[in-house]
Amino acid sequence: MNRLDGRAADQPRPVEVTTGFQRNAEGSVLYRAGRTVVLCTASVDPTVPPWMAGKGRGWLTAEYQMHPRSSPTRRESRDGRGKAPSGRTQEIQRLIGRSLRAALDLRRLGEMSITIDCDVLEADGGTRTASITGGFIALALALSRLHGSGLLTEPVLRDQVTAISVGHLEEGLALDLVYTEDSTARVDLNLVATPRGGIVEVQATAEDEAIPRHEMDRMIDLGFVGVRALAKTQLEALAHAGVDLPMLFQPERWVVL
Amino acid sequence: MNRLDGRAADQPRPVEVTTGFQRNAEGSVLYRAGRTVVLCTASVDPTVPPWMAGKGRGWLTAEYQMHPRSSPTRRESRDGRGKAPSGRTQEIQRLIGRSLRAALDLRRLGEMSITIDCDVLEADGGTRTASITGGFIALALALSRLHGSGLLTEPVLRDQVTAISVGHLEEGLALDLVYTEDSTARVDLNLVATPRGGIVEVQATAEDEAIPRHEMDRMIDLGFVGVRALAKTQLEALAHAGVDLPMLFQPERWVVL
Amino acid sequence: MNRLDGRAADQPRPVEVTTGFQRNAEGSVLYRAGRTVVLCTASVDPTVPPWMAGKGRGWLTAEYQMHPRSSPTRRESRDGRGKAPSGRTQEIQRLIGRSLRAALDLRRLGEMSITIDCDVLEADGGTRTASITGGFIALALALSRLHGSGLLTEPVLRDQVTAISVGHLEEGLALDLVYTEDSTARVDLNLVATPRGGIVEVQATAEDEAIPRHEMDRMIDLGFVGVRALAKTQLEALAHAGVDLPMLFQPERWVVL
Amino acid sequence: MNRLDGRAADQPRPVEVTTGFQRNAEGSVLYRAGRTVVLCTASVDPTVPPWMAGKGRGWLTAEYQMHPRSSPTRRESRDGRGKAPSGRTQEIQRLIGRSLRAALDLRRLGEMSITIDCDVLEADGGTRTASITGGFIALALALSRLHGSGLLTEPVLRDQVTAISVGHLEEGLALDLVYTEDSTARVDLNLVATPRGGIVEVQATAEDEAIPRHEMDRMIDLGFVGVRALAKTQLEALAHAGVDLPMLFQPERWVVL
Amino acid sequence: MNRLDGRAADQPRPVEVTTGFQRNAEGSVLYRAGRTVVLCTASVDPTVPPWMAGKGRGWLTAEYQMHPRSSPTRRESRDGRGKAPSGRTQEIQRLIGRSLRAALDLRRLGEMSITIDCDVLEADGGTRTASITGGFIALALALSRLHGSGLLTEPVLRDQVTAISVGHLEEGLALDLVYTEDSTARVDLNLVATPRGGIVEVQATAEDEAIPRHEMDRMIDLGFVGVRALAKTQLEALAHAGVDLPMLFQPERWVVL
Amino acid sequence: MNRLDGRAADQPRPVEVTTGFQRNAEGSVLYRAGRTVVLCTASVDPTVPPWMAGKGRGWLTAEYQMHPRSSPTRRESRDGRGKAPSGRTQEIQRLIGRSLRAALDLRRLGEMSITIDCDVLEADGGTRTASITGGFIALALALSRLHGSGLLTEPVLRDQVTAISVGHLEEGLALDLVYTEDSTARVDLNLVATPRGGIVEVQATAEDEAIPRHEMDRMIDLGFVGVRALAKTQLEALAHAGVDLPMLFQPERWVVL
Repeated sequence: MNRLDGRAADQPRPVEVTTGFQRNAEGSVLYRAGRTVVLCTASVDPTVPPWMAGKGRGWLTAEYQMHPRSSPTRRESRDGRGKAPSGRTQEIQRLIGRSLRAALDLRRLGEMSITIDCDVLEADGGTRTASITGGFIALALALSRLHGSGLLTEPVLRDQVTAISVGHLEEGLALDLVYTEDSTARVDLNLVATPRGGIVEVQATAEDEAIPRHEMDRMIDLGFVGVRALAKTQLEALAHAGVDLPMLFQPERWVVL
Repeated sequence: MNRLDGRAADQPRPVEVTTGFQRNAEGSVLYRAGRTVVLCTASVDPTVPPWMAGKGRGWLTAEYQMHPRSSPTRRESRDGRGKAPSGRTQEIQRLIGRSLRAALDLRRLGEMSITIDCDVLEADGGTRTASITGGFIALALALSRLHGSGLLTEPVLRDQVTAISVGHLEEGLALDLVYTEDSTARVDLNLVATPRGGIVEVQATAEDEAIPRHEMDRMIDLGFVGVRALAKTQLEALAHAGVDLPMLFQPERWVVL
Repeated sequence: MNRLDGRAADQPRPVEVTTGFQRNAEGSVLYRAGRTVVLCTASVDPTVPPWMAGKGRGWLTAEYQMHPRSSPTRRESRDGRGKAPSGRTQEIQRLIGRSLRAALDLRRLGEMSITIDCDVLEADGGTRTASITGGFIALALALSRLHGSGLLTEPVLRDQVTAISVGHLEEGLALDLVYTEDSTARVDLNLVATPRGGIVEVQATAEDEAIPRHEMDRMIDLGFVGVRALAKTQLEALAHAGVDLPMLFQPERWVVL
Repeated sequence: MNRLDGRAADQPRPVEVTTGFQRNAEGSVLYRAGRTVVLCTASVDPTVPPWMAGKGRGWLTAEYQMHPRSSPTRRESRDGRGKAPSGRTQEIQRLIGRSLRAALDLRRLGEMSITIDCDVLEADGGTRTASITGGFIALALALSRLHGSGLLTEPVLRDQVTAISVGHLEEGLALDLVYTEDSTARVDLNLVATPRGGIVEVQATAEDEAIPRHEMDRMIDLGFVGVRALAKTQLEALAHAGVDLPMLFQPERWVVL
Repeated sequence: MNRLDGRAADQPRPVEVTTGFQRNAEGSVLYRAGRTVVLCTASVDPTVPPWMAGKGRGWLTAEYQMHPRSSPTRRESRDGRGKAPSGRTQEIQRLIGRSLRAALDLRRLGEMSITIDCDVLEADGGTRTASITGGFIALALALSRLHGSGLLTEPVLRDQVTAISVGHLEEGLALDLVYTEDSTARVDLNLVATPRGGIVEVQATAEDEAIPRHEMDRMIDLGFVGVRALAKTQLEALAHAGVDLPMLFQPERWVVL
Repeated sequence: MNRLDGRAADQPRPVEVTTGFQRNAEGSVLYRAGRTVVLCTASVDPTVPPWMAGKGRGWLTAEYQMHPRSSPTRRESRDGRGKAPSGRTQEIQRLIGRSLRAALDLRRLGEMSITIDCDVLEADGGTRTASITGGFIALALALSRLHGSGLLTEPVLRDQVTAISVGHLEEGLALDLVYTEDSTARVDLNLVATPRGGIVEVQATAEDEAIPRHEMDRMIDLGFVGVRALAKTQLEALAHAGVDLPMLFQPERWVVL
């Protein structure tokens, strides 16, 4: 398979992680995967929404926003400005929220809220998976800071969560699609999963016609190749930022891959 | 497994279909699956949206709306009235639209638009899958009427599309969840598929923690049991309404199951 | 006078009432008058709006919504979706609410709220009067259920409320206009009244020029012919549903017509 | 009957009319009826809305707005600012528009639009009827100016339109209610009519219970007393402003009262 | 310099002030400066916004609204109706609020809110400065009434606030621009100031290119000429309305000019 | 004067400029002034708004957005999301647009539109002046690229535009306020100006009481100290990015400072 950027079919884009990019936030990551760039920001608030108050549990939610000039070709109006965010935006931010909540034991977090803002600064496909993968790093940075300041005494992470796309292209299956691949894929699958083999979320959509069941199975297999690679990148970036990830994990959960 | 309504784990709810319920629409179905009731209405418009004009292709879109008293316990405000529909509503209507477009060869439809309105009159879980399964019947009724009036000369259906949910409950996997099952399921999977074994869309969400890959595979297996059962129901309802479904299908596509 | 559907000038359309159509609601009626169909749903909530709290009185309000495919010719966008309902919609639902509040002694109802949802599934003129006439049946069903469950111990109805339209057509006056009659009527009058001869509301609008006073008087006379006929239909439908209407009425109010 | 302001039951409030109040508008009237003050402004635009273009007919529409400090007791937020105008506001401006269109032969007006802005500066009941009665004067002023400048060559008025309220109070029927009377009236009737005895619109609402038919008839009788008195006031104000009203009327229409 | 209306370069437009125009408001002024007319209305509310409660301080805010027919040429839609007010409107009402707060010692006012509504009835340039200058008179009228009724015992005014525009025209600097001057001015400066020589706000905008510093200084000099003239007009209008302005001022603040 | 960050009263914050930060935009600058960080993005569109079409002139507009976690203390909701941007936001983006249009000869630009997006990533006071100063650099980068690709053949810059704040603090006047200084300043002045001594815009607001005229003059003097310093920084950053600024300037305009 000849990919535009010379990658192998099972090779994710090169990732570059800058931690602490926004100095005010509890957790901040500038996440670059090829020409997709997302600024992931974790903010901690010591309260929970009214409907959750008094239950002793925490909450995590996400907001996703395309910068008006994230596209290579032209400026678009800022989605959701002066009107409700588009259905696509809302769908993505619900997905990011669900995915990162799967990483957390909300019961152990206690009554606090974490918001993950995902601002897409450059878009070349895979912005939702980059938001999840980068968002996990921002989340871990925030948890580490909470731990350091004594606001969190228990380990609250139960899984490391990573996301990647898989496409069903004319020439075969391919991992981590760029925009031009994505727009011609027969099927677009997003896998949110853990490096230990757990599935958090699968969304697979045949853009045109249905595909046979066994091809969907192969797509998930390929997705896990990417999940394991990106999980390693997450660990390295956190270690480089001085985060002791195992300490944030519940002991029974943490295994060396 | 003891289910509240006495069904076996792999048994969908009893379905009752009333065709022609709204006399003005090109296709209308009152679709009842247990205590979930959806009014599916197909309307045909002889134009396409501006961004599609001149391409010789058709379009299909869906709108989903909960009736304010669809819930057994109390009236809720009409979602999307006086403000943008909720993220959940938008996500569901995008799913219904994609799913039913997979059934159609839009190139053969010609420049016309079909809108599928899905009004949930009673809600007991599974409203999005009922909307797709009932929506397919409404679509076929409308196509049949277009055919009868000579506005459609080619067969435009390429697949029969059906949807069902599968849950990962405490006691095991179960097909076609009612509300109380759905709200406690560890994983909720919606399968949109064809009785010939093709997958149109899979959405699986671990509400709490990730689940192992092989359990996801078993859930899809179970989903196909439901898809084949509901596909038979669709065929019977259409036959009863005098619709010659094979005639609407592209010859190379139609196979006896 | 030759009417399109063969009716006499003083003859309302044939009415068909299905009670209990939505199983979840306290009161539900599918009300068909010719080719106008309204789903009337009464929901009871054990609270009142904040501005009424502590006064010991109940409240009733109505919501009116055209289904996007209620028109015979084409789908229209769902009024009020993503924006405020149109002036016409708001005017109609205020009328329905006022009309049905006239039937109730709100002081005896106690602090609870009743909402009447009127969803127009097919529209061929007279949707607001069908909403009121059908809405009264849904209201009586809900009151009967409250009575049966002991939540209501006093009779709270003080009048039976019914509504009908009268038109001033080229050929003369006519009762209960269908759409094509309505759109050419010189004057359109809606009468909300009781079979005992009481007027709850009159709205008469000369679409083009003013009309002489005495013609308005004759229109009201004709309206009462329809009110008495529809009141009989309401009684029969409620009796068929097992509702003991006299028991819901205040004794001094109830008279055999 | 003892009325708060000493009026007889069949006596309208004293009216004071200032024409030309806003110098920029084609027609402008500051209309004071007791402590209700409405600024009525007629603006002419030489086009019609798109849906009317090419039909050779004109259009008239109205906008109604309460000034935030029209109430004697306190400032209220400006209705419709930053959100849709309330149902009440929309209902009133639709009524004003219909009422004043009844005065005009839109076919003879030609393709132009007239907008009547009714800004309520002080509110003491009867703001909708004051808007119609004052709006007619503003309309006639604008037509007169169009005539003077040669933009209108035909007489386009076919009726003089006036509006007044009638209330069914504890002590009996009363004309032209002030706020405290209006808020306790058993029935509130608004009559839009012509001094020649034609009815343009009747809206009668029993706030609490239904009233007998014959009482409604007496209310309309009383309304016509007020209509004839206000029509005289309109004529005097226009004559004082130098408007030759008979010239604006179609000859066959104009009669000395 | 030849100005269209014959004024000298340093001469403001003739001002006409009608106090008590709206009888319901605590302070009301119809302020006419040439062909610019603003209705300024001061309303007093005995509470403060929630975020200010309990601080013992008062608040003042302003609302600015163009009447749809304020323009000489044609009706425009009512800004902010059914949608958010335009950026220009919001900017102006924030300016009016800040300017008039500078006149007040909010600490001595106590917990009450004053709203200044500025409704522009005719617009010929200078509507924001007319709103401030007229708004000050309405404010003083309201304070005087509060004083008279004993609700205010301390003097709360610390400055007399007046506003005027200065333009940099082709032919030189000019005070108090009318619309046609304003639209061709190279620089438009609005000065909000006190007759004692204090500056409350300066906003100077070069519409096209930057201007030298020393020209800006000359514009401010000219602005003060206008401020002193208008301050005299304010005093005369208030004296004529029977307001003892010195009594409302803090003694140490009040000086004869 | 002792400033919190040790600066002298006439010393602006240290500035760090990263050009080319967003790779897709025609001009991109990450502008850091102390702990205020703004991402300034210039996008070029080869059309103009409809109301400008056919005039042969270009247009420039700006959008300003606070990132939800720009504040050091806590996340705030994204201003303008799902509703209109606040009055403050609109006021600021109108200021940025006017200021940068002053730098351009729109007649020579030809029919194209430039949008400057200013996303505030960290906020410590002075975000509007940083947006203008950084926005000018982004604009020059975009113009240089247009020049390089031949889409622009004439020099279109006529001034170098820079902005800075000046505060009137308890201890004296100070340049380039940080947030804590800004919130206690008696007067806040924003100067948009050119290093050659031209004023584009002055906005000075006395937060509490008016200040004497001569103090305002001294504030402007101090502002020019900052404008000259920042103009030098702009030049250095552009030179470092390989932009030949003099070539973009109209020859008669460009002078060595």
